[in-house]
Amino acid sequence: MAESVRHEKTARQLRLLSDALDSGRLGPVRRLVNTLSPAEIGNLLESLPPAKRTIVWGLVDAEDDGEVLVHVGDEVRESLLAEMDPDEIIAAVEDLDIDDLADLVEDLPDAVIEQVLLSMDRENRERLEQALSYPEDTAGRLMNPDVVTVRADTTLEVVLRYLRLRGELPDHTDRLYVVSRRHQYLGRISISDLLTQDPSTPINRLVDDEQAAIYVGETASEVARKFSDYDWISAPVVDENNILLGRITIDDVVDIIRDQAEHQALSAAGLDEDEDLFSPVPRAMRRRLIWLSINLATAFVAASVVGQFEGTISKLVALAALMPIVAGMGGNAGTQVLALMVRGLALGQVSASNLRVLLWKEIRVALLNGLALGTILGLVVLLWFKMPGLALVIAVALTLNLLFAASAGVLVPITLRRMGFDPALASSIFLTTVTDVMGFFTFLGLATLFLLK
Amino acid sequence: MAESVRHEKTARQLRLLSDALDSGRLGPVRRLVNTLSPAEIGNLLESLPPAKRTIVWGLVDAEDDGEVLVHVGDEVRESLLAEMDPDEIIAAVEDLDIDDLADLVEDLPDAVIEQVLLSMDRENRERLEQALSYPEDTAGRLMNPDVVTVRADTTLEVVLRYLRLRGELPDHTDRLYVVSRRHQYLGRISISDLLTQDPSTPINRLVDDEQAAIYVGETASEVARKFSDYDWISAPVVDENNILLGRITIDDVVDIIRDQAEHQALSAAGLDEDEDLFSPVPRAMRRRLIWLSINLATAFVAASVVGQFEGTISKLVALAALMPIVAGMGGNAGTQVLALMVRGLALGQVSASNLRVLLWKEIRVALLNGLALGTILGLVVLLWFKMPGLALVIAVALTLNLLFAASAGVLVPITLRRMGFDPALASSIFLTTVTDVMGFFTFLGLATLFLLK
Repeated sequence: MAESVRHEKTARQLRLLSDALDSGRLGPVRRLVNTLSPAEIGNLLESLPPAKRTIVWGLVDAEDDGEVLVHVGDEVRESLLAEMDPDEIIAAVEDLDIDDLADLVEDLPDAVIEQVLLSMDRENRERLEQALSYPEDTAGRLMNPDVVTVRADTTLEVVLRYLRLRGELPDHTDRLYVVSRRHQYLGRISISDLLTQDPSTPINRLVDDEQAAIYVGETASEVARKFSDYDWISAPVVDENNILLGRITIDDVVDIIRDQAEHQALSAAGLDEDEDLFSPVPRAMRRRLIWLSINLATAFVAASVVGQFEGTISKLVALAALMPIVAGMGGNAGTQVLALMVRGLALGQVSASNLRVLLWKEIRVALLNGLALGTILGLVVLLWFKMPGLALVIAVALTLNLLFAASAGVLVPITLRRMGFDPALASSIFLTTVTDVMGFFTFLGLATLFLLK
Repeated sequence: MAESVRHEKTARQLRLLSDALDSGRLGPVRRLVNTLSPAEIGNLLESLPPAKRTIVWGLVDAEDDGEVLVHVGDEVRESLLAEMDPDEIIAAVEDLDIDDLADLVEDLPDAVIEQVLLSMDRENRERLEQALSYPEDTAGRLMNPDVVTVRADTTLEVVLRYLRLRGELPDHTDRLYVVSRRHQYLGRISISDLLTQDPSTPINRLVDDEQAAIYVGETASEVARKFSDYDWISAPVVDENNILLGRITIDDVVDIIRDQAEHQALSAAGLDEDEDLFSPVPRAMRRRLIWLSINLATAFVAASVVGQFEGTISKLVALAALMPIVAGMGGNAGTQVLALMVRGLALGQVSASNLRVLLWKEIRVALLNGLALGTILGLVVLLWFKMPGLALVIAVALTLNLLFAASAGVLVPITLRRMGFDPALASSIFLTTVTDVMGFFTFLGLATLFLLK
């Protein structure tokens, strides 16, 4: 429901664009494209097949090129950069903020990086090199060194005079940072106070020093958590000596939150959040083949379990029709538990201290669901095959498999996390291996024990 | 990796809390809890089993109660409200912003709602009733009526004097809104300009009227899209006559983005994003049972397809062991396509104009993957069963099923969207039904045609 407005708006733009592109009238396309913000242009380019993408990219105002490149996924960015010559790339990126430039630079050809560095003045070059010295996905990469600082031993009036001399403030400046003579971070004063407090107020009376600054080595996801828990618009970044290095702003944090969500949704299917909707077939194939091959290997494990029971199946072929139900229902029930666990782990809500309670709760839910669904399944099997023994065996096997599924749903993601793996990525493969193997084994095993004489 | 810091921090808090709670020393628990922000307390409460949750909730400072209630999911909120008497609830909610109060009010018992309304002054009561008159998940519900407005026919100096008289600005005020005599929205001026421009500047020289205001009926997800495409901190909300009604701020938008991401992740498993990690067993069971019952019904469909081939299986039992591989690999491959499509639909990147190109791309990827995986699978089957015919049949069946999977992965979500359903919710059930049914049918059908004589 909620998504459909966006869908309709972009769909309308796409249709207009498609029609104009098909008819070869590029004037209207150019006008349409350049009414959009760089983020919107990025989204539009992501939704265009390669040939049309190239045409539209050529029509984007050169001054927007850099910002558009910042707003697309890695794969699409690569395809756009491939259409530009070095001079265009340099012109596009030289006005970007340092944090955006650092994000982009690693996707550029080496020769172009060198030219970009040469085209910058010394201060900016040093800032960029500084930014690139921090690992990706840390506060150091997200911050922008462009910060307005004031000293504590002055008055509001002096600060106000300084700001008028300085001119325009950096985007999203909601606070000024107070620093010592050695540029150590002391606290922040809000813009709101600058406008509403008496000009004669000493700055040190306005300083809020309650919140510690962000350490430059903190991870992006920890930064995102703090912004969202404390409703920040911007936050200062310091080094280990509390020297103020820069500032992170909410717009970059919103991008992190979106990326994390996409990562979680796509990695469950073995995909990368930077995957281009229209990535070239050989590349898309290679990437998916890895994931599917792992799944194929686990499918063989499950098949070999079934293989052990060929004698049983040959005596009672109904088992072959029914066994996927037991395995599949385990997979479905386990996936539900897994989804809750992956969210809980991402939010830091699941840990050793509540694991036992959680497991016990899921075991009880699985037992009740197993009894309910097992009864339904048993009755249907009874009506279908008229074999009370078979009905009882499948009901018990289903209940047991839901118990295995619940245990695996709780324990697989937390075990992967402890071993240092991303639970969103690999959990589902392990889970379905457990539910397939145990589903086939319990059902065919019970059938062998109780139905054959 | 990135999540582990948060995990560790909250896990440490949880362990400290658990130890303190177990030992019955509530003093340290209270001190620990009340160093946290309301959002952090909310997250902590979500991660506690019911008994401990009740104890910790009783230790939270009364003045934080309202904000904490705003920051937890619906189910947890219900469990917390159940622990409070009406007076406590009224005290907790009466200082909340109108948008937060509107969000909360519908979860309160009727008698309490009435008392809350009575405890408010007339202006706030009218504002609350106004907010509640807008549908959930629209701009009207998200906005806060507390807005600083100025008139165009004045100077910066006058505005600065007015702000000093007015005192503190509402949180996240990065722009003032310029309105006409009839309170129609005319544009915005940035706080940054107030601080850096000459005081004698007329306001109408500073007004930015490029961006239209948000219409009060726009959906929450359209609001979120605009904030993220335009990097807004706050945005004005108007009615159909362009009368300024209020203001939406980025902190609420961040919550929307998080909720949408959780909705997408959990609804794929048939769960609600408001589900409590520790929801009572009967409730958790009921909710999951609905989803599992639908899956059970589709599993019967697949089983009945297998049932049609009992004669074939009884002659060649190896088919029983191998058929889940064909069906399961189709499910895995289809899920990958589905994940890309659901993201593309949510971002408005997929529509009628590029559907054919997308489908064609996915068909080619599936064909290549089918040939690659089919070859591997065929070779393994050849080594295992020494039957070249069987190896060829399974290779062809797998390739065909990957083609069905790719088509269903593209077409199921877009069809559901067109019919007005949420593609994130129901797509996976339809997809796996297709891949199970077609997997069993092609494999067992081809085996019947070519392997039996």
